[in-house]
Amino acid sequence: MNDANDLSALFERCGIGASRRTGGTLVVRSAIDGAELARLHETPEASMPEVIARARAAFQRWRDVPAPVRGELVRLWGEELRKGKADIGRVISVEVGKIAQEGLGEVQEGVDICEFALGLSRQLHGKTIVSERPGHRMMEQYHPLGPVAIITAFNFPSAVFAWNAAIALVCGDPVIFKPSEKAPLSGLATFRALERAIARFGDRAPEGLAQIVVGRAAQAEALVDSPDIPLVSATGSTRMGREVGPRVAARFGRRILELGGNNAMIVTPNADIDMALRAILFSAVGTAGQRCTSLRRLIVHRSVKDVLIPKLLAAYESLRIGHPLEEGTLVGPLIDEAAFHALQLAVAEVEAQGGRMLTGGGRVLADRFPKAFYVRPAIAEMPVQTGLVRRETFGPLLYVLAYDDFEEAIELHNDVPQGLSSCIFSNDMREVERFISASGSDCGMANANIGPSGAEIGGAFGGEKETGGDRESGSDAWKQYMRRTSNTINYSTELPLAQGITFG
Amino acid sequence: MNDANDLSALFERCGIGASRRTGGTLVVRSAIDGAELARLHETPEASMPEVIARARAAFQRWRDVPAPVRGELVRLWGEELRKGKADIGRVISVEVGKIAQEGLGEVQEGVDICEFALGLSRQLHGKTIVSERPGHRMMEQYHPLGPVAIITAFNFPSAVFAWNAAIALVCGDPVIFKPSEKAPLSGLATFRALERAIARFGDRAPEGLAQIVVGRAAQAEALVDSPDIPLVSATGSTRMGREVGPRVAARFGRRILELGGNNAMIVTPNADIDMALRAILFSAVGTAGQRCTSLRRLIVHRSVKDVLIPKLLAAYESLRIGHPLEEGTLVGPLIDEAAFHALQLAVAEVEAQGGRMLTGGGRVLADRFPKAFYVRPAIAEMPVQTGLVRRETFGPLLYVLAYDDFEEAIELHNDVPQGLSSCIFSNDMREVERFISASGSDCGMANANIGPSGAEIGGAFGGEKETGGDRESGSDAWKQYMRRTSNTINYSTELPLAQGITFG
Amino acid sequence: MNDANDLSALFERCGIGASRRTGGTLVVRSAIDGAELARLHETPEASMPEVIARARAAFQRWRDVPAPVRGELVRLWGEELRKGKADIGRVISVEVGKIAQEGLGEVQEGVDICEFALGLSRQLHGKTIVSERPGHRMMEQYHPLGPVAIITAFNFPSAVFAWNAAIALVCGDPVIFKPSEKAPLSGLATFRALERAIARFGDRAPEGLAQIVVGRAAQAEALVDSPDIPLVSATGSTRMGREVGPRVAARFGRRILELGGNNAMIVTPNADIDMALRAILFSAVGTAGQRCTSLRRLIVHRSVKDVLIPKLLAAYESLRIGHPLEEGTLVGPLIDEAAFHALQLAVAEVEAQGGRMLTGGGRVLADRFPKAFYVRPAIAEMPVQTGLVRRETFGPLLYVLAYDDFEEAIELHNDVPQGLSSCIFSNDMREVERFISASGSDCGMANANIGPSGAEIGGAFGGEKETGGDRESGSDAWKQYMRRTSNTINYSTELPLAQGITFG
Amino acid sequence: MNDANDLSALFERCGIGASRRTGGTLVVRSAIDGAELARLHETPEASMPEVIARARAAFQRWRDVPAPVRGELVRLWGEELRKGKADIGRVISVEVGKIAQEGLGEVQEGVDICEFALGLSRQLHGKTIVSERPGHRMMEQYHPLGPVAIITAFNFPSAVFAWNAAIALVCGDPVIFKPSEKAPLSGLATFRALERAIARFGDRAPEGLAQIVVGRAAQAEALVDSPDIPLVSATGSTRMGREVGPRVAARFGRRILELGGNNAMIVTPNADIDMALRAILFSAVGTAGQRCTSLRRLIVHRSVKDVLIPKLLAAYESLRIGHPLEEGTLVGPLIDEAAFHALQLAVAEVEAQGGRMLTGGGRVLADRFPKAFYVRPAIAEMPVQTGLVRRETFGPLLYVLAYDDFEEAIELHNDVPQGLSSCIFSNDMREVERFISASGSDCGMANANIGPSGAEIGGAFGGEKETGGDRESGSDAWKQYMRRTSNTINYSTELPLAQGITFG
Repeated sequence: MNDANDLSALFERCGIGASRRTGGTLVVRSAIDGAELARLHETPEASMPEVIARARAAFQRWRDVPAPVRGELVRLWGEELRKGKADIGRVISVEVGKIAQEGLGEVQEGVDICEFALGLSRQLHGKTIVSERPGHRMMEQYHPLGPVAIITAFNFPSAVFAWNAAIALVCGDPVIFKPSEKAPLSGLATFRALERAIARFGDRAPEGLAQIVVGRAAQAEALVDSPDIPLVSATGSTRMGREVGPRVAARFGRRILELGGNNAMIVTPNADIDMALRAILFSAVGTAGQRCTSLRRLIVHRSVKDVLIPKLLAAYESLRIGHPLEEGTLVGPLIDEAAFHALQLAVAEVEAQGGRMLTGGGRVLADRFPKAFYVRPAIAEMPVQTGLVRRETFGPLLYVLAYDDFEEAIELHNDVPQGLSSCIFSNDMREVERFISASGSDCGMANANIGPSGAEIGGAFGGEKETGGDRESGSDAWKQYMRRTSNTINYSTELPLAQGITFG
Repeated sequence: MNDANDLSALFERCGIGASRRTGGTLVVRSAIDGAELARLHETPEASMPEVIARARAAFQRWRDVPAPVRGELVRLWGEELRKGKADIGRVISVEVGKIAQEGLGEVQEGVDICEFALGLSRQLHGKTIVSERPGHRMMEQYHPLGPVAIITAFNFPSAVFAWNAAIALVCGDPVIFKPSEKAPLSGLATFRALERAIARFGDRAPEGLAQIVVGRAAQAEALVDSPDIPLVSATGSTRMGREVGPRVAARFGRRILELGGNNAMIVTPNADIDMALRAILFSAVGTAGQRCTSLRRLIVHRSVKDVLIPKLLAAYESLRIGHPLEEGTLVGPLIDEAAFHALQLAVAEVEAQGGRMLTGGGRVLADRFPKAFYVRPAIAEMPVQTGLVRRETFGPLLYVLAYDDFEEAIELHNDVPQGLSSCIFSNDMREVERFISASGSDCGMANANIGPSGAEIGGAFGGEKETGGDRESGSDAWKQYMRRTSNTINYSTELPLAQGITFG
Repeated sequence: MNDANDLSALFERCGIGASRRTGGTLVVRSAIDGAELARLHETPEASMPEVIARARAAFQRWRDVPAPVRGELVRLWGEELRKGKADIGRVISVEVGKIAQEGLGEVQEGVDICEFALGLSRQLHGKTIVSERPGHRMMEQYHPLGPVAIITAFNFPSAVFAWNAAIALVCGDPVIFKPSEKAPLSGLATFRALERAIARFGDRAPEGLAQIVVGRAAQAEALVDSPDIPLVSATGSTRMGREVGPRVAARFGRRILELGGNNAMIVTPNADIDMALRAILFSAVGTAGQRCTSLRRLIVHRSVKDVLIPKLLAAYESLRIGHPLEEGTLVGPLIDEAAFHALQLAVAEVEAQGGRMLTGGGRVLADRFPKAFYVRPAIAEMPVQTGLVRRETFGPLLYVLAYDDFEEAIELHNDVPQGLSSCIFSNDMREVERFISASGSDCGMANANIGPSGAEIGGAFGGEKETGGDRESGSDAWKQYMRRTSNTINYSTELPLAQGITFG
Repeated sequence: MNDANDLSALFERCGIGASRRTGGTLVVRSAIDGAELARLHETPEASMPEVIARARAAFQRWRDVPAPVRGELVRLWGEELRKGKADIGRVISVEVGKIAQEGLGEVQEGVDICEFALGLSRQLHGKTIVSERPGHRMMEQYHPLGPVAIITAFNFPSAVFAWNAAIALVCGDPVIFKPSEKAPLSGLATFRALERAIARFGDRAPEGLAQIVVGRAAQAEALVDSPDIPLVSATGSTRMGREVGPRVAARFGRRILELGGNNAMIVTPNADIDMALRAILFSAVGTAGQRCTSLRRLIVHRSVKDVLIPKLLAAYESLRIGHPLEEGTLVGPLIDEAAFHALQLAVAEVEAQGGRMLTGGGRVLADRFPKAFYVRPAIAEMPVQTGLVRRETFGPLLYVLAYDDFEEAIELHNDVPQGLSSCIFSNDMREVERFISASGSDCGMANANIGPSGAEIGGAFGGEKETGGDRESGSDAWKQYMRRTSNTINYSTELPLAQGITFG
């Protein structure tokens, strides 16, 4: 299934030719088996200023291309992604180890966002505003902002770029894409689809409109620190965000940070337990627990726990772990050894912090994949919400906490530094409404009767607190990619002052 | 006019009793004559945690008070400001030296924003969103955020607090107000009006809902660095913003920065010259050039210059400079000696950088007010846009630059690091529209046929680039004071995944 | 309590002097005791053209008064209503028989809408729109529409005028108010408050900005048919709407129709029965069942019926019926004899259509108030939803229908020609969500766990189907009071055509 | 070019097979040469109830299909239109005589609106609304409305259907399309593309989702009068609207009326005369003056008239009139003999009303096309705006009126009963702004420096006064295709009433 010839053909079809894949310094391995997939040429640090200058120059032209025409480019990209869906999805699976369905689903997000952005291309609405002065009118317009740097993580190596780039391009902004060094091939495959769209779009697209930078921290830092990049969109760890945020702020840039989550589900006595069970399964073990929105904490009413947990353990038992492209596999590998060690560390801490491992945590399939890291998804019961629980461990480790009183559940829920996603399972409308109210979940996303992961692109995606506070994707997230200008137009022959002031 | 008895009575009426005004360590002087107005007790640094904790506790209750009820508090504040307008306006004049009209106008802004916020109290609208999944719906709600720190500058010692606090309170956020150490009395007078409103509002307002902190940098820093203050709204210099921004970002807080401007007017051959003249006058010398939106650069077509400049010089000649509360005065004092020296420095640099002083810059009325700093508003003609011109000097110094070609005017206009306000004077619709287009002014505010200063509260106020990038006042600026939550509600008995993914 | 001297003084305070109250042809009686309150002078039919011409002339000036200035007038009106709340509320009680709380609540709605409209006065937002053509921009603006006729019904003789007039005035439209001939005094009292506000507002208000027309059908028809009245807002019966709608349409006018409702509550097995009980009580018997949103149909799950109905009957037993201004009264009189007869007719039909009267329906207090009509609120159990049930009877008659299956409840609910308000009582989130979904209630208002009446002014008020389809009050209902203009501005020197067409 | 074989193949490609084209009772002729194109089978009047019932049944299912899924259908339709653009465009030309560019442009509008509607499918946003009561929240949702009847005119036989149907389908509404009896083939060709999309979309589309009705007035009336059609969208004459409006209103339906226009251009002394000239040409003679937005009145400043008119006459001289599919043709035929006679009638009246024919009006090419009606576009100079001028004549007849003063121009402009589109040519910003202000043009569309026709789909299309008052296409026109529901959700255990009322 990972046959070298097949892979070679796959990469070719995705526009990643042999010359690009060999001879470079960035070694890319498959999470599936640890096999080397490519040695990519890195963008030299020294050429970063040129890259940025090219984007800057492209901006001068792109901002004057009418937005609905820019929308046409994104429409073509959507078409290319639709055509390339099977291939790009497979590259994702091969590189980061997602199961086939998830690889395809990620490309579908790209298709969806392109169509959403196409619609946006005629809807970048500001407001017309009545003035307090006769013969005056006001309005606000949203104008293109400038080059946008898109720095992504390994776990959504395709969709997060698409989310940002589709919106940025429609908003009139050139893009510079820096994919994770752990998943550059998925990034490249997605980027090539955009390049094909640009080729079809013709010379209305200025040179330098979309660029990809292959590299590591240094290249990312060049983007973060450049005064010519008014917006940096970065997805990754809270640690990364704690560094990027201030650096961008120091040069008066804008940022979109999508950082860590510590996503919980509250299961109340009024929950549909079977639905909760299925939702837990998908959101805790899907993508091997490596979604930013993966379920990490299960806050369950004590009366329900004894019903739910055994069922959950049974379901965990039957989970098929293995090669992500094999039929029936639900859990693929972790991204790399570091991820495995981080998980091991957390598992080791569980008991030290008073908890108890209920299942999983250990490595499996080491014989078949000695250089890859498959683990059995883990559940740990914790008597209280310790420091370990309050920290994000990026893997399939679910903490179970019991509660007695609904207020207590909400308090437990909010008492972590992250604020990305959350959910409640309950058919009681009061519990549900309370959970999504001002004094309920403090997360950017709060769901009822669905898990914390798997957001639709129509809503605003992102979180509060240490998750970063910013939003991507739908709703009015596009406004971050533009600059707003408030205009007051005086067409009278008088010069009245606001607030009734007279002068002179 | 600054009679001690009158002043004492004035301060009493504004709720600043003698015991508060004496015996403290913060010496407050009148910009008018340098006379000591008060010695205020500073909030001890050590008690800042308590202040913040009080706000935090107030938040727990205030967020559950329905927004339209919160609106009622702001309505009462508006009433109190309306009643106290003459007195508070006078305190502003006495303390920072604004002419009477401007002092009153500033309080009027407070009245206006309270009424605007009252309307908002039923309009904190999120979106309902259609879901791609059957039996699901989505929505986004805006919920209260938490305590907001409001750190203001001397030049709008009342209005900027009102702008922020009226919106914050309606949004469900307690406020902590740190007025400029150069203008705490104006701040206190405005704050007392809020306290009177709170008293009338009764026990629906939790203790600690609105607090004022008297002090200097240390107190401000305590607010900037506290993880319990999710939003810091700070007005001041770019230098200040360069420090505040990263510090707030480092703790994943939000900020609203309103920093320096370098606001220009383009006067084209199609301008109504007399209107331009009046607009220049108000916006360059009003508030002695100490508005963040003061006109600092005049970019005038060479063909117009010889008509406009002589008229402008004549108008400058006849400007009445003096005690700001005397009938007919148009230009009051600078805020303090430091401001005077900064201006002198700039004037001195003009010639060194190839320019020529056309008028003004020197101190006047030194005999009458030996401890205050009145200057004659200055105009300097510059052959090119030098480093001096690109820097904000906070006083009545206007640079004149000539242009030949409209594109050149736009380029000159945008070639400064700040991005607050801007305007064009022209009756040619193509010039006007070009100026407010995507490739026109890069400022947050771009006006036609009115000056750069004196925005209405209905629009979003703020600027791009080193001005900070954030917005206050009208339009949807309120969203910054709330947290957004995206909700997906599943009321079906199925658990479909987004993007058509199937799992298990 | 209805002492003549007191009343005289009350009317005087409300601006309805003796000369206005006597000598006319429109006899006004108190619903409380049938006593004559006034003989008002009617606006002669022949002078209607003048009235309309005056409004037309006022429009020419009012539309150019900036909207925030227009907002100031509405602010003053709100102040006047606040000051006059007790008096106007009492006039309402005296004239139409509302209990004191309801009279006051109605005036409060006027206060609320004035504050809402004040906020709107800076928020009459259209959109700025990106163009598909270079050098073009688009926007839409909302401009004043013209004179608005407001024709109201007896049951909200004050608030409905305020709802419409506050919005209309802020939108730039003069108003002509035609109150119900059954409740002109309440209308006049409310209108006088507006006149006092106009007087304070001064000459910024053109003559003819707000006019009241006292009369009957003929005067209303003059407004309905005039091509100079672009908007007719009419509240009343479906029969009236069936006439007004086509007549306004025939002259290409706009209308806002608020017609009959047949509002239901579904009580499911998951309801909080005690809350449901209280909600039924208020919404079925409040205002003696004469609200357009009064509860008329109770669709209750068969399993709950036997618990709920006995409690309901007990509650009905203890209802205090009587003089509406006496302490403790919950049910006042019907508006007049015709209303009483309509109710009697319905009661008589109940058995003929297979139903059973469970309580009430008969006249009470006939001795004390021989010329007024007090009835005991009625409940009828109906085996099926007959023609009688599907018809609106405007009084305190509640039909009880049982259901077995939730789908059946929804079907029953929607199977009436009216579509105003509706509600469900259930703590089951699936039932609640289903009820407010696309395949749930087909009404303009669909609530959960509150009754169908008592809407807040922040939402859009109105209904579907024979209720008229239009909206008043909050959300974007204001757009109906303005005309929209879509603008395309070409500031380039080219003339490209849309859709890529080339010509010549 | 109209070779029978070619035509047959063209119709086949468009899905209009021979059996459909022959044997029916509706004779369709080509406007190009009057040749018979088809004899279509009409939908029997008696089967209209079935048609409507089918739509009703489809609605029950379609409304529960998630909107983004409905968007997928519209995406597919856009693809089909894109693929069929050349063919459908040609059918339009053949049937109604549009020049090739215009036929293609019309199909492009369909493509554009499908893409816009696709974006909308995730943006059918209502508002979440804060409540004045604790433990309550409000929101408004937009839900599918029901079957929509789309009755179109001959002049946009494809695009108007697409505008309405793309939005209606995304909004959850089945459509019944009744094309003009003068242009059913263009309608059919467009409809077939939708059918192909539905086939690809598969069984998610219920039977009866989109239906076409071939016929005349009787079939249209069945739709207009049916209580099962909540929305009738009808394009045509004011006469038609005057009938349809009241009939729909009488049954409490909604309507979108797009009726006559009497569109004017004001040319001021500050206009770019050459641009104005080109704009006049396209908008007055394009589509042989048979657009609803065609330019009909030229209001030109007396000082400009003597420059502009001679140039205009020269341009009219050189217009190539002829077979619309021949290279270089700019003016094709009128739709039929009736149109020709109406034009002749108007031409005859010109002198009677004091005007003077400057050019055109006569029939040409009668030899080549004896059964078709080609005319030379006409210009008439009128001293005043007579009854003739105030009436819409649907053909290439342009009235010229001179003005001296700008106010006079605006008055002339607005002094017609219609209110569709309008424009000004001027580079003076004051004139432009005044024209689009509250006291400027009273039309639904008011442009600057582009002609009145050729709107982009992103804005709201439609007009005021006798044009009907409704809107189609962009902005928030979609709201007319949905029903709004205001929801108040009480999740507390209390039952507070609005407006602070207490009861019992």
